[in-house]
Amino acid sequence: MRIGILGPEGTFSESAAITWLKRITLGTEAEIRYYDTIFDVSESLLRKDIDYGIVPIENSLEGSVGDTLDVLSSNMPIKIVGEILLPINICLLARDRVNFSSIKKVVSHPHALAQCKQFIRKRLRAVEVKYTESTASAAALAMQDEEVAALASAEAARKYGLKILEEKVQDKDSITRFVVLASPDLEMPSRTGSDKTSILIYLKDRPGALYDVLGEFAQRKINLTKIESRPSKKALGDYMFHIDCEGHIEDKEIREALKGVEKKVVMLKILGSYPRA
Amino acid sequence: MRIGILGPEGTFSESAAITWLKRITLGTEAEIRYYDTIFDVSESLLRKDIDYGIVPIENSLEGSVGDTLDVLSSNMPIKIVGEILLPINICLLARDRVNFSSIKKVVSHPHALAQCKQFIRKRLRAVEVKYTESTASAAALAMQDEEVAALASAEAARKYGLKILEEKVQDKDSITRFVVLASPDLEMPSRTGSDKTSILIYLKDRPGALYDVLGEFAQRKINLTKIESRPSKKALGDYMFHIDCEGHIEDKEIREALKGVEKKVVMLKILGSYPRA
Repeated sequence: MRIGILGPEGTFSESAAITWLKRITLGTEAEIRYYDTIFDVSESLLRKDIDYGIVPIENSLEGSVGDTLDVLSSNMPIKIVGEILLPINICLLARDRVNFSSIKKVVSHPHALAQCKQFIRKRLRAVEVKYTESTASAAALAMQDEEVAALASAEAARKYGLKILEEKVQDKDSITRFVVLASPDLEMPSRTGSDKTSILIYLKDRPGALYDVLGEFAQRKINLTKIESRPSKKALGDYMFHIDCEGHIEDKEIREALKGVEKKVVMLKILGSYPRA
Repeated sequence: MRIGILGPEGTFSESAAITWLKRITLGTEAEIRYYDTIFDVSESLLRKDIDYGIVPIENSLEGSVGDTLDVLSSNMPIKIVGEILLPINICLLARDRVNFSSIKKVVSHPHALAQCKQFIRKRLRAVEVKYTESTASAAALAMQDEEVAALASAEAARKYGLKILEEKVQDKDSITRFVVLASPDLEMPSRTGSDKTSILIYLKDRPGALYDVLGEFAQRKINLTKIESRPSKKALGDYMFHIDCEGHIEDKEIREALKGVEKKVVMLKILGSYPRA
């Protein structure tokens, strides 16, 4: 099995991929391939260079990942076949002999640095702060220089042979939700009894349009776990909604709700049904 | 009048502030103050160090700005009194004698670099790419070194005395929506006839809860311009919704709809009514 993720080695995407592999325990060897962008992961999926793509879709502090929503709402026939919830635990990493007082520079991806601002202010006061392209490339820098510490995942510590000086150094805890993408010829995961269905709809900009759609779910007592409006980029005033609900498309109520939704919208795209994380 | 924004000088936040100042034309001199974080802007507002804060809330490609949603949903009694829609036009800036062939390094904030990936690939092929803390600090770097070009706003070119080598170099156009924040003792902008009202609600996690709330708007033919769910961070399964609708709280229908909403939710926070951008 070949899995595509955002590279380089040791990012939080890789931790998500490992979490997912442990859960599905297929007994087969998995090969992880690294890509520069979420768009590259999706293209590679459609070319069948990989079997699955695992990409971030939202973080509880930072909000949605625009690139992933764009790929899902594009013409690419990509499905969601799973989800992973990953608590983002940021660690301070450095080479073996380094301690807090010998650190001259702390490096990481801007998001990770932003999430550890108070920690840096209190514990690494006179230290220079520098941006890197990813948390993993920060770890690679720390490996080369004893004066440099990196904010990155525990996974990155293992990959780059670094010491964890301190764990969970983020100011606020956050969770990132990743989705497992697959090409459309892969079969949809079967019903487990604890599932989620993701859809995308285009609505006309008229009062009550969304209300009418949600009525299809409410009258069947189907719980929504996410709803987010985004401009469709097709015309001003046209909206696109990403909706996740509890249940599987094989459930009678979900099937009937989606039939009702289809009649009320400009376009309905069923992104997939998959086990809840 | 003192306005607080994310610094340093010459960011897109500053362009938004200038757009807003031109629109309100108060005839008074405005002083712009620069802060490191959106949280710092808000605190400064409550301390009355500034009269207004202008911060980004969403971008059509990147989605919501988590820090701004967090400030609005916190206990800080902050109101929204205006909005600004800013098309994000990224320019390639360098010192006067520089041309494309003499550029060795291109620098910018990671978001701007991500939005200009194709441009960099095609027009700046063998050039080194480096991250900076903001588009404005990229411009500051380009000012110091003839081998460095920056991706930043036209405003930054003026501020740092740089030449615009090329305009609109982004791969895809996007719009950032900024909100104008004020402390609660400032009077709400009066009704113009083309207004927007922003609210925040906490819902219990039960099927149909959101549907019931939206019914209050639908039955009065009130159009929603935005709806976004976010985990409340208070308890698992508790959701917070950011909702924007057309109309002013002085409109009878809006007032009645909000009265109806209040009865159906755990908590309703009225963030403000203000003229549509």
